[in-house]
Amino acid sequence: MKTSLRSLLFLSLMLGACGPAFGSEAGRSCVSCHEEANPMMVEYWRTSAHAEEKVSCETCHGDYASNHDQPAGVRPRVEASVCARCHKEPAKQHFAGKHGVGFRAGQACTRNRPGHQAGQAECGTCHAPDSGLPREKAECARFLAQSPEMQRQGCNACHQVENRCDTCHTVHDTNLETARNPSICATCHMGPDHAQYEMWQSSKHGILYEQYGTGYAPDCSTCHMPAGTHNVSTGISMGLAGQPYPEEVRTKERERMVSVCLPCHTKAFSENSLADADAIQKQSKVLLDEAAGIIKSLNDEGLLFPSPAERPAHPLSGPALDIGPQMLYENLSSVEAEFFVMKKFHYVTAYKGAFHQNPDHAHWYGNAPLKLSLSRIRSEAELLRKFGTLRARLDNLGRGAGAGEEPQSVPYGPEGRLRELKDRFLSGQISQDEYDRRRAEILDASGL
Amino acid sequence: MKTSLRSLLFLSLMLGACGPAFGSEAGRSCVSCHEEANPMMVEYWRTSAHAEEKVSCETCHGDYASNHDQPAGVRPRVEASVCARCHKEPAKQHFAGKHGVGFRAGQACTRNRPGHQAGQAECGTCHAPDSGLPREKAECARFLAQSPEMQRQGCNACHQVENRCDTCHTVHDTNLETARNPSICATCHMGPDHAQYEMWQSSKHGILYEQYGTGYAPDCSTCHMPAGTHNVSTGISMGLAGQPYPEEVRTKERERMVSVCLPCHTKAFSENSLADADAIQKQSKVLLDEAAGIIKSLNDEGLLFPSPAERPAHPLSGPALDIGPQMLYENLSSVEAEFFVMKKFHYVTAYKGAFHQNPDHAHWYGNAPLKLSLSRIRSEAELLRKFGTLRARLDNLGRGAGAGEEPQSVPYGPEGRLRELKDRFLSGQISQDEYDRRRAEILDASGL
Amino acid sequence: MKTSLRSLLFLSLMLGACGPAFGSEAGRSCVSCHEEANPMMVEYWRTSAHAEEKVSCETCHGDYASNHDQPAGVRPRVEASVCARCHKEPAKQHFAGKHGVGFRAGQACTRNRPGHQAGQAECGTCHAPDSGLPREKAECARFLAQSPEMQRQGCNACHQVENRCDTCHTVHDTNLETARNPSICATCHMGPDHAQYEMWQSSKHGILYEQYGTGYAPDCSTCHMPAGTHNVSTGISMGLAGQPYPEEVRTKERERMVSVCLPCHTKAFSENSLADADAIQKQSKVLLDEAAGIIKSLNDEGLLFPSPAERPAHPLSGPALDIGPQMLYENLSSVEAEFFVMKKFHYVTAYKGAFHQNPDHAHWYGNAPLKLSLSRIRSEAELLRKFGTLRARLDNLGRGAGAGEEPQSVPYGPEGRLRELKDRFLSGQISQDEYDRRRAEILDASGL
Repeated sequence: MKTSLRSLLFLSLMLGACGPAFGSEAGRSCVSCHEEANPMMVEYWRTSAHAEEKVSCETCHGDYASNHDQPAGVRPRVEASVCARCHKEPAKQHFAGKHGVGFRAGQACTRNRPGHQAGQAECGTCHAPDSGLPREKAECARFLAQSPEMQRQGCNACHQVENRCDTCHTVHDTNLETARNPSICATCHMGPDHAQYEMWQSSKHGILYEQYGTGYAPDCSTCHMPAGTHNVSTGISMGLAGQPYPEEVRTKERERMVSVCLPCHTKAFSENSLADADAIQKQSKVLLDEAAGIIKSLNDEGLLFPSPAERPAHPLSGPALDIGPQMLYENLSSVEAEFFVMKKFHYVTAYKGAFHQNPDHAHWYGNAPLKLSLSRIRSEAELLRKFGTLRARLDNLGRGAGAGEEPQSVPYGPEGRLRELKDRFLSGQISQDEYDRRRAEILDASGL
Repeated sequence: MKTSLRSLLFLSLMLGACGPAFGSEAGRSCVSCHEEANPMMVEYWRTSAHAEEKVSCETCHGDYASNHDQPAGVRPRVEASVCARCHKEPAKQHFAGKHGVGFRAGQACTRNRPGHQAGQAECGTCHAPDSGLPREKAECARFLAQSPEMQRQGCNACHQVENRCDTCHTVHDTNLETARNPSICATCHMGPDHAQYEMWQSSKHGILYEQYGTGYAPDCSTCHMPAGTHNVSTGISMGLAGQPYPEEVRTKERERMVSVCLPCHTKAFSENSLADADAIQKQSKVLLDEAAGIIKSLNDEGLLFPSPAERPAHPLSGPALDIGPQMLYENLSSVEAEFFVMKKFHYVTAYKGAFHQNPDHAHWYGNAPLKLSLSRIRSEAELLRKFGTLRARLDNLGRGAGAGEEPQSVPYGPEGRLRELKDRFLSGQISQDEYDRRRAEILDASGL
Repeated sequence: MKTSLRSLLFLSLMLGACGPAFGSEAGRSCVSCHEEANPMMVEYWRTSAHAEEKVSCETCHGDYASNHDQPAGVRPRVEASVCARCHKEPAKQHFAGKHGVGFRAGQACTRNRPGHQAGQAECGTCHAPDSGLPREKAECARFLAQSPEMQRQGCNACHQVENRCDTCHTVHDTNLETARNPSICATCHMGPDHAQYEMWQSSKHGILYEQYGTGYAPDCSTCHMPAGTHNVSTGISMGLAGQPYPEEVRTKERERMVSVCLPCHTKAFSENSLADADAIQKQSKVLLDEAAGIIKSLNDEGLLFPSPAERPAHPLSGPALDIGPQMLYENLSSVEAEFFVMKKFHYVTAYKGAFHQNPDHAHWYGNAPLKLSLSRIRSEAELLRKFGTLRARLDNLGRGAGAGEEPQSVPYGPEGRLRELKDRFLSGQISQDEYDRRRAEILDASGL
């Protein structure tokens, strides 16, 4: 494409050549203006399959030409629904998978909102009527807590994927090689939250791809868009953040994924490798749950500084602790900040690293920091409790009582926390109800 | 070049072929020795535009041949002033931009030194007479605090750019494709302090460049060296670390940058996108200033452990807190260490990520860690204050007074800090002067 | 290979073509089944030098065909000893270098186990009899602390290199270009623990390699496998984690490395550059040792929360502090967690970054975080000590004694720690023996 594009551009600039004119404003076509103002924009289109098939500016952008002077909100953006008029099957697949259900159906950021009930009517909580585009304020707590600028440049630049095909198919360029280039996936599937691109690139798969090109080693689409499907949930056997799927769904999707491995690997090897990653997800989740339990306890004991009540209210949960799917990365105590990093970065990296056959991501970027974070949270909790005890002893002195003694350290792990809880119950510090509830939480979280 | 270089090298090794002899030591030319000792060094030169134009070893290195036995300090390094003898225009542009004013004019690391006054005479504070090369100890506090080896391999390997054209134009290689390869910029413009290369590479711009090559998407030089200028400040509309430019400069440079976007993007889109990044810089700065305010307060309250007075003196500020442009990354208290990372890494990444159209860098590498750091700093400050209160109560007990009470938590954000300050003033803990000064600082920092 | 592989695969699928049949199970050859079940697996082999030389499935995998129904433990893995039957010289070189002595000779993870004595008999502590493959539990503490799944996907995926040639030579592919591609090294030599690949890639060496390809700039094998040797310790002049080599070995290996630099660089430049990296390693080690000393002191003072005795026992050292080569990254106090990161990530990065001519890794990924970690550890130690003092004063109050005074801060650095130690000795808190031992440790660590 390189040479032909260049020579076309050169010719068009030299001869003032003009493609078929589409659109009109005061008698001028879109192209006649824009090829002066934005020559490469027009060039990308002119050498595209769209131009070849007579898909004009107006076909996608409508009569935006007559709205040029409208405020910025009215932009010539092309939603997925526009593309879907022609590209019916890919659009249908897209909307059936993770890429298509993001904000729209409340299954992504807002999926765990208290009181959330699935249903068509709820679309309106996030989206403007008759539009799939996010409202100014989609109800994701982390999104709500950002400035409009960060919402646009940070959040929606990726999460727009649901309703913007040009998130992956670059604007005006219809070259499928671009869309299939694994680097296209990297813009969003990179970095501390989920580095799938980096994991793949430095795995054996990525290296063989670098050496031989597509077809000799899997790239992103080989596994996640097999046979060209736009349902990117194909072959994924667990929900967001490792939430379990119903067993029959899980089994079916795992079989699909294994079938992608078979050209190069035996069935046993493939199944064992993925089963290892399953186990690593579950094992990592237990560590995460232990940390969550510690933070909940600290909150109950009044040892989070600042406490949730002293901070700006959480956009959805109000002045209460929220370390679930809607957890913020701001207005936290120090120990919660460590938990956020543990949960959103290290936990995810440990098991996704294993699923993408990358030992360094599974181990050094995932497992090791995950366990270091748990160590830090446990240690910080112990220090906070020792501080709390000191303060209580001093309070007692202030009230004329003796200085008392510092309690023994609590033994390690869930057993230790259960023992401590029992002590607090037996000494009358907490009620039977609270004891039962907290005990169940600890047992649940630790898988005991 | 690959094949021709190889065949040339092969021939020269086979036939003992010898290029035109330049330089002489005891009758031998530079080339005749070095093509034995360092064949590829000579080969890079022999296939260069320099060799073609009869630019010999001595043209650039002078009569170093006769100084071979001098101590290491006298090395055949070629300063920019040597290149500038022929390459007049690029050198002039280079020295007018950021790359050229680094250490030399005191506008980079030392630009904010207390008492600093711009002027030609000051060159001598950093540079040896009649030389643009940095002295052994350029007056940047972070530089001064390092060993000579780290100064060479860590600091100057990048900051030599001012006086060393071969920082970007690799040694003896005159191929402009090498110098224009974005990877050349990566060696310095990468990593935690400013990852412009990584930001670009995984943005849509970088991916289109990977797919189609230069000309179909912007690379580093498209935006920062438009029309081949060597003034790399072209189109930059703010100073180092986001310091504001005078409005007319800002406007002019922004217009220049927008003009680079226009071949592919509309004016409105380009302006809005850059305006978002402007806003993200300002918003991120407010968070940074809040953290700076907290640390200054902790220092006033004697709650930095170790305190500035207990540490080795700061190379420029002495035994005092310095969290400004000359802040060290060593000999800090824990809360200052968090601030350093927040300021030099996360803050810069948040807005530069947005300017380079990379959502993951703007958000997950920038904004989220920035806010997590602020949470950690606030939380640590609260714990330190609670500790301080406990100690004060115990001191009172030791003096026979009552154990007292722990004060209420201070409400959140700048409002809370203003209220606390007022309390301290009203209770006589601080003077009117200090109250006024600190109040102004808090108001300034928070933009209230 | 790309085209020929594809056309071969196409032909074989179209015509049901079948290579020479090797192996048999119930009359069927390996190939006849596997080219249906795993066509690319067979294709990689069929286009390999092995197929050309009539090296069949059974040549390497033995009669695994008759063991298809055995449990997963009996897998058709090919150990290095199998490859060594033909590839004698490379195997010999491999086993003589770092890649070959990993687990096997107890020189890697287990090399510092207390009581360890080198000798052939010790192989059995890690390896099953008559096999070089690691036992289920090789005696590396960090390995022992992981789940079997993480051991497989995280630890052994890299550390299998000793006995698995296919760690670098990808399975069934005999293309030496693949094995020499620097990306092959990346899978293990990347990430926070040792990012040699990233260091090289964004150094001038990596960029010239990207521009001109192999031969015009060094890649991994140029320096570490010169002249094709499989002894990857060639030219390395220090042991793991910077442990010193005997001087004559160090000198010999350094000369070897410098000889690799000479085609492009002068001897003086090469030697000086490597000497800088040597110095940075030593300087960084002093900081590391200071941090280690602080943690040992805190442990002695009972100020690690939780204390080693309160945690699950260390797999090799039991319920005692272990911050040496067998240090875990789990079950640590907060200050130890910081030390782990300082030691395994920042320290290593600082000097390896310098050895790989990457200023950003040496400085921003290495030196700066190294010094920030030391700051954090010092500061945390001071806070813990202040807390301990407060608790002791309160204990005294509880026993009817006065509230006492907080001691003065200890002056900075090793001098301060020596003075503090002397005070503790003079006031009878520690014995002469302990004083002597600890004093020697501090002096050793700080190089005083």
